[in-house]
Order: sequence, then structure tokens, then C-alpha cells
Amino acid sequence: MSDFNLSLDSVARSVNSTMDKLLPAGKGPGGVLMEAIRYSALGGGKRVRPFMVIASSSLFNVDERYALRAAAAVEMVHCYSLIHDDLPAMDDDDLRRGQPTCHVKYDEATAILAGDALLTKAFEVLADKKTHPDAVVRAELVLELARAAGDEGMVGGQMLDLRAEHSTLDVPQITRLQRMKTGALIQVSCEFGAILGKATEGAHHALRGYSHDLGLAFQIVDDLLDVEGSPEEVGKQTGKDQEAGKATFVSLLGIERAREQADLLCDQAIEHLEIFAKKADPLRDLARFVVKRRA
Amino acid sequence: MSDFNLSLDSVARSVNSTMDKLLPAGKGPGGVLMEAIRYSALGGGKRVRPFMVIASSSLFNVDERYALRAAAAVEMVHCYSLIHDDLPAMDDDDLRRGQPTCHVKYDEATAILAGDALLTKAFEVLADKKTHPDAVVRAELVLELARAAGDEGMVGGQMLDLRAEHSTLDVPQITRLQRMKTGALIQVSCEFGAILGKATEGAHHALRGYSHDLGLAFQIVDDLLDVEGSPEEVGKQTGKDQEAGKATFVSLLGIERAREQADLLCDQAIEHLEIFAKKADPLRDLARFVVKRRA
Repeated sequence: MSDFNLSLDSVARSVNSTMDKLLPAGKGPGGVLMEAIRYSALGGGKRVRPFMVIASSSLFNVDERYALRAAAAVEMVHCYSLIHDDLPAMDDDDLRRGQPTCHVKYDEATAILAGDALLTKAFEVLADKKTHPDAVVRAELVLELARAAGDEGMVGGQMLDLRAEHSTLDVPQITRLQRMKTGALIQVSCEFGAILGKATEGAHHALRGYSHDLGLAFQIVDDLLDVEGSPEEVGKQTGKDQEAGKATFVSLLGIERAREQADLLCDQAIEHLEIFAKKADPLRDLARFVVKRRA
Repeated sequence: MSDFNLSLDSVARSVNSTMDKLLPAGKGPGGVLMEAIRYSALGGGKRVRPFMVIASSSLFNVDERYALRAAAAVEMVHCYSLIHDDLPAMDDDDLRRGQPTCHVKYDEATAILAGDALLTKAFEVLADKKTHPDAVVRAELVLELARAAGDEGMVGGQMLDLRAEHSTLDVPQITRLQRMKTGALIQVSCEFGAILGKATEGAHHALRGYSHDLGLAFQIVDDLLDVEGSPEEVGKQTGKDQEAGKATFVSLLGIERAREQADLLCDQAIEHLEIFAKKADPLRDLARFVVKRRA
């Protein structure tokens, strides 16, 4: 295992422990809701977005306790989106991270409510004094996460994606869709460090450039894994896009050019980090990991 | 029409206009998401919770522009909860405010996403500088709304309610369930005025007492309307609780005692307002309206 994997793993452990405390197992008749939330939110995952929050926070010497809470909030939003996207009325997936999806393990109503509660909890965590002593920072975290996750970001992108099954999109349209569906949350994860660290506009801008390119590379690799990966490796059903006749970067560019494009975007992402010198090495490693991952 | 109705109507008009601006009709391929959001959020409703925000804000001379944005955010959360609660996997309702529910008018995926986007937008609105110049106030609005709407509030209550169909609850259990499901959002609506107006702890406390009693009265009247009202009057299917064999205040107390209890709680709610003298008349009128309403 490379050093970077160790580092990704150690951030994942810290974030899991933070999430475990923020989502305490419930008692009494309402306990099943929290059980479903914990099943979906604490059942594994690489914690790539939390790593982005932690690594970007480290550029500005942000207190790790603040960064971990902000990272947990972003991951809660990511987990809620997976629960809802997996629902029968949406992508109808039975398998996630090698386990039954939330609505399969519990039921649809519980999965809808677990997602709703996780999304809500993310904002509760960010608005809490424990996440940052400065309310201006807290309000900005909430604002930027809401923008990234809402109708002009992730949810809007999922809507476009659902409708893409009935239409033929070209590369610019797929790019826009993916920037909304997955890029926006990746971008805000990297910007969280800058917000928490009250970074200069220049640093903000560099992180925005990095995450913009990395978000797209991330999605292209996801599309490649859907074609090239096995369900055992990837932990979810593969070949779904092709089956649904969905336009993806791979269907439009072909495997080879899609792979080249991902590598190019990775290099481009790394170039944005120059102003941070060695301090940005974890973000450089992350970019390389994202395009090389097999799951 | 009484003076109070005029006032409830005029607040509804102002809040609708604020929501109309905060949820601008979308263009392009993603436009259908915003169309579904607008269909559900701007398609009527008495705007009782926004009235509570406005009336409580007026106690502390809060700038009306701030109160209206905060009121719109609360109503967005209420509207999202209706969209999700109406889904086939949840209460499976076809009719809401006399119109087809969101998933009937559009489809289930769109309804799930419209709810998700509305919930997210509520927090975006509250965290925005336009809602209050003081970030401490904005962060507190977010925190309290998230607490009221999440797993220990509205969503947790809906989960208990879904499971109540398979169990026999007694009055204390029903009371707890309803305090979470509808009471928490009503309570935060009344507290928003105190937060926006940086009220004293005494004033906070009085509003909490008022909204605590009023929230329960509201729910008892809802249960009564489900038994006594016609679908035409109420704008949604009635008799559903009885059909599902669900324990309600009415099934447990009987019609007459439930009605008495609602009246008692209304009087009790009004008593909490004494410290505000005449300024609290709109909140007094609201309490009387809540127990007398026919829809």
C-alpha cells in the first residue's frame, strides 16, 4: 500500500469516527431511522470528498477538529444523494459498495427519510459553533454547500441525468451535466478548506481551478469503470449506462480518448496547485489516485 | 372576511411573491425540476408557518424583508415535506390542496428531486446575507431550522408516523410523534422572529410556550378535519387515518374531547403571549384561526 493510500485511509478513519459521533445510534421507536442512516453513511466508502476538505484545510493550517466536521457534512450530503439516487424511481440500484442499497435493506419510505435526514443534518453540523467560532465562516459553509447540492448543482444534475436516458447529449452537454451532478460537490469540498482558512482570493481561485478539472476527471473515470470494471471490483452494478443507452464520456469519446482526457485533466488540475508548493502534495496525490483508481 | 383573514391573506401574498423570486422558473433541459418545485411550492396553501414568522418578527420590529425571506425558507421546508410525504412509498396521496400531487403531475423521480432541492434551497436562503446582516443570526436560523426539520424533528416524526400504522400508540406517544412531525416546524416558525429580533430569553421562552401549545392544537384539528371534513373542503383525501387503522387524537379521545382539548390548548397558547401586550394580537388571532379552520 502506498503512502498516499495510508493517508487516504487515515483520513477516512478520522471522518468515520466524526460521523459516528454526529450520527449516534438511536433508541426507541424512531431508532430504525438512525439505523438506516448509519447503515448508509457509515458502511464504507473511500471518503474522497472529506479528503479534499481535510487536504485543502491543511493548506491554511485550519484546526483539524473544524475540518473534520466540515468534511463529515460534505460526506453526509454525498451519502444522502447515493441513497436517493439508488431508489427504484431513480437509478433503481440494488447494490452499493458491495452491500444491498438502503431501500433494499430497509424499505423505500425509510430510504427517502434517511436521505432527507442526512441532508438536513449536514446543515445542522455546519451551522453549529463547534464547526467554526466565526459565524461568518459557518454561514458561508452553509451557503456554498447548499448552492453546490441544490437545483443548480447536484440535484439539478441528477435531474438532467435522468432525462438524458431519453435524449442524445453531446460532449458539452454531458460536461455541463456532470459538472452539476458530481463536479459541484467536489468543487465545494476543495473550497471548504479555503473558507475555513479564510484564504485569499488567489488561493480560492487556485483551488477552484484544481477541483473544476479534477471533478471532470473523476466523472470520466467513473464512466470508464462502468464499462471496464466488474461489479465485484466496483461494488455496484456495472454496464448500466450502456444498457440504458445513456450518453457518457466513454460512449462519446471511446475508451482510449476518454482515458487520455482524464489523464490530461489530472495534469491540468495539478498545475493549479503551484502556488501552494509542497503543502499541496496530498491534493496532487489525490488527483493521481482519482484517475488510477479501480473502484 | 374577518380582519384576520385579510391579514393572513396579505402575508400569504407577500410570502408567495418572495418565494416566486427565490424560485425563478428555469430554462433549458433542467427547467422541469424548477417547474415541479414551483408547482408544489407556489400552488396555494394558507402559509400559516410564514405568518408565524412574520407575526413573531413584528414583536421585535424586525425588517420585513428579512422576515419574509426567513418565512419563505420555512415554507420551503414545509412544502418539501408535503411532496415527500405524498409519495407512493410514504402516505401515497394523489390530491393536495385540491390538485394532483407532485409525483402524479410529474413523476416520482421528479418529486423526490423537487423535494430535495426545496429543502436545500431553504438553507441557501437563510445563509445568504440578504436574510440578515449578522452572520450569528443567519447561522442560528440554519441551526434551528435543521434541528426542527431533521431526525429529531419533522423527519423523525414522519418515520414514527409511518410505523404507527403497525402499532397501537397511546396519547403520550401520539403527542410525542406529533410534536416532532408538525410541532417542531411550527415551533421554529415562531422562534424565528425571536432569533431575527435578537429577543431576550424571556421573550424566546414565551414564544416557545405559545408555539408548543399551538402546534399540538393544530394537529388535533388536523385529525378532526380528517374525520369531519370532506375532500372538497379540505383539499385532500379524508378518512385516511381511520382507513389505515391509525391511532390519532380523535380515535383515542373521541371527537368531542379532542375538540375540547384543541380549544384548551388554544387558550393556553394565548396566555403565553401576555408579556407582548397588544403587539401579539396577530398571534392571538392566529391561534383562534387554527382551531376554527375548516381546511
